Amino acid sequence: MANELVVELPDNDKVLDAQTVKQDFPIFKEVGQDPFVYLDSAASAQRPSKVLEAMDSYYHTTHANVHRGVYRVAEQATNLYEEARSHLGRFLGAPKPELEIVFTKNATEAFNLFAHGYGRKILGPNDVVLLTKMEHHANIVPWMILREQIGFEIRFIDIDAEGQLVLDNIEQQLKGVKILGVTMASNVLGTLNPIKQLTEYAHQEGAIVIADGAQYSPHLPTNLQVLGVDAYCITGHKMLGPTGIGALWARTSILEEMYPFLGGGEMIRNVTTEGFTTNDIPHKFEAGTPPIAEAVGLSAALTYLEEIGLENIRAHELSLTSYAMEQLHERLGSEIKIFGPENPSARSGVISFELKDVHPHDVSQILDQEGVCVRAGHHCAKPLMTSLNVPATARASFYLYNTESDVDSLVSALVKTVEFFR
Amino acid sequence: MANELVVELPDNDKVLDAQTVKQDFPIFKEVGQDPFVYLDSAASAQRPSKVLEAMDSYYHTTHANVHRGVYRVAEQATNLYEEARSHLGRFLGAPKPELEIVFTKNATEAFNLFAHGYGRKILGPNDVVLLTKMEHHANIVPWMILREQIGFEIRFIDIDAEGQLVLDNIEQQLKGVKILGVTMASNVLGTLNPIKQLTEYAHQEGAIVIADGAQYSPHLPTNLQVLGVDAYCITGHKMLGPTGIGALWARTSILEEMYPFLGGGEMIRNVTTEGFTTNDIPHKFEAGTPPIAEAVGLSAALTYLEEIGLENIRAHELSLTSYAMEQLHERLGSEIKIFGPENPSARSGVISFELKDVHPHDVSQILDQEGVCVRAGHHCAKPLMTSLNVPATARASFYLYNTESDVDSLVSALVKTVEFFR
Repeated sequence: MANELVVELPDNDKVLDAQTVKQDFPIFKEVGQDPFVYLDSAASAQRPSKVLEAMDSYYHTTHANVHRGVYRVAEQATNLYEEARSHLGRFLGAPKPELEIVFTKNATEAFNLFAHGYGRKILGPNDVVLLTKMEHHANIVPWMILREQIGFEIRFIDIDAEGQLVLDNIEQQLKGVKILGVTMASNVLGTLNPIKQLTEYAHQEGAIVIADGAQYSPHLPTNLQVLGVDAYCITGHKMLGPTGIGALWARTSILEEMYPFLGGGEMIRNVTTEGFTTNDIPHKFEAGTPPIAEAVGLSAALTYLEEIGLENIRAHELSLTSYAMEQLHERLGSEIKIFGPENPSARSGVISFELKDVHPHDVSQILDQEGVCVRAGHHCAKPLMTSLNVPATARASFYLYNTESDVDSLVSALVKTVEFFR
Repeated sequence: MANELVVELPDNDKVLDAQTVKQDFPIFKEVGQDPFVYLDSAASAQRPSKVLEAMDSYYHTTHANVHRGVYRVAEQATNLYEEARSHLGRFLGAPKPELEIVFTKNATEAFNLFAHGYGRKILGPNDVVLLTKMEHHANIVPWMILREQIGFEIRFIDIDAEGQLVLDNIEQQLKGVKILGVTMASNVLGTLNPIKQLTEYAHQEGAIVIADGAQYSPHLPTNLQVLGVDAYCITGHKMLGPTGIGALWARTSILEEMYPFLGGGEMIRNVTTEGFTTNDIPHKFEAGTPPIAEAVGLSAALTYLEEIGLENIRAHELSLTSYAMEQLHERLGSEIKIFGPENPSARSGVISFELKDVHPHDVSQILDQEGVCVRAGHHCAKPLMTSLNVPATARASFYLYNTESDVDSLVSALVKTVEFFR
């Protein structure tokens, strides 16, 4: 299956200047560690001043609880919160931005909400949920928890040696499938999956598609209407926003149909001692006080990303990834194995690798001594680790503030590591 | 049942100076509305600069994802997050502060976690969950959602004319009860419930007690070991912390026994294509990236509260509440009805009321024109509204930054409202 992912990339001279971008992120000045080569944005990104200022400004001038207040400050807070919702909807290309975004605490909660809200609604013991072996635990474990209660089957799409989904027999694999859960971009391999085609196949079989956008929407332009998926999850802290906020997008018709998940204030229309009725979407799924300041911060992060341009961010990361893969192969030769697609265009700005005879945790620790921050571990993707036949990988991940000089630091530190262990 | 709640109150001259305290909260200077008489802290409190500075400092110097990183910054972030957990545990008097606090997004999620994690574990179709008619929806609706799946009975303890729980026949009411859910302090009436005695009765009947501390722990010293309850919920934004964070405390033995609730990364020990095993407590219940910066902010809020002293905060609020009730009765006479206990010592700093022939929403709106922010509505306690036989109330709530002058503004604005409608 060819990957339909074609992002119109800008000319070279329009692409962002990462050195300038970096100035917007206070941590690069204030971390108290020099050098500080942060290559772990796939775990969590850093934040520009504007995001922190937006939250501080909110707390300094506007804070009150939302939705239920009739005084001015509470109404302003409600407006800011609801504007953040619409903003995220527009950012993702949602058909109804003001109705279809449910704020959660992270992407994981969004998957749980979808599994328990929609999965519970439509799945019976004889049904099938199809996932992939490169899913993050967030798109696996909620289904397993639900399975314990309902008893359906969970199947996994395999990956090939290059870290691509094996889709030759996709129509066969989709037989009897009610829900397909698939990541837009592997958080380990970087693989960009052909979601649009996959969704077309899934819809032909009557399956609903939930896509994991946590590693995608921070880095590439997202248009849900073009992708055609039915539900989509993101998290704020990977896209320059604060911790404590994520979101589920789903089609209006699906949200309408879904069971409520978390119960409490705000998600109800009425409560008696006998029972309750639910509020309208999206409030039906937002029980209790929502992450108000976090929504304001996320909206500021989206504005920042939009001003720079997701096409520019993609072009910049693609260029860094190409340069990094080239340098890693050239300087480390057979000492390094890079997982995932060889062609940088087929992957996001994530490079997982192993050094011959060096445990990934040792790699990360030694790199830290050189000021280079990479993650080591299973990256919350243990079934993928099993497929790759490794206990863990080291992973470098790039974002808009990373420079070629960061890549050089990574490569030099890896060369040192290899020499150290030789 | 006599209320065991005896807080050793300080001498008058040690009690806080609210005018000085107010200086620590930037919103009172920057809100752009003068006067700004904020009497809605029971919905959400404001934040002192130190809380915002702690979060900014975290983002400026330390941010990385927690638990899985082996580089220094990630280890520092993990330490800060785990220290915040222990801090909250100590603040509440938890036996094992580092193990027994589960961070959630708000108190509501904490109740849902307990209902689905523990309730699902121990409840069968013939069991009983006993709640009270003054519970917040957060401690009602999760049980109703679970009931739809399991089929147990939910009963409610009545309230009397003074807004106290009717406990004469408590042993009878507790017959067959597996779980008792009860608020420490009503968010509408202010009623401080006799939790310690109630818990003793419940334990005699073999019932487990979950208490709602959302309206209590921000305002009075909490000692879980003295209270004797088995589980307890709080939320950060009502206790000077940020939005986006709350917590469930439960005994180690209960947490160990509980089913996992949200599935995803971090809460697992292993995941294969076949199934998963869970992590140790408390991580077993924290799926995905937690509210890291929010935990740092909450810890700073706790430090601020500890420095001022919860006894002082209680004494101050008690004094304000007494003064307010006295003034309201004196100036408004039969025009006002105050719900809940007549004795200020029996209530927290929350005053719900109705003005004769004026809808609470109109009260709130007219008060807003005078710069006085009070909430109007059902306060997420609809069964209580039914018991009180009102559709809604207006509610003023006090916190450490409120002054007698704020009370005067409230009373004057209410007098004006009455005159306006006459």
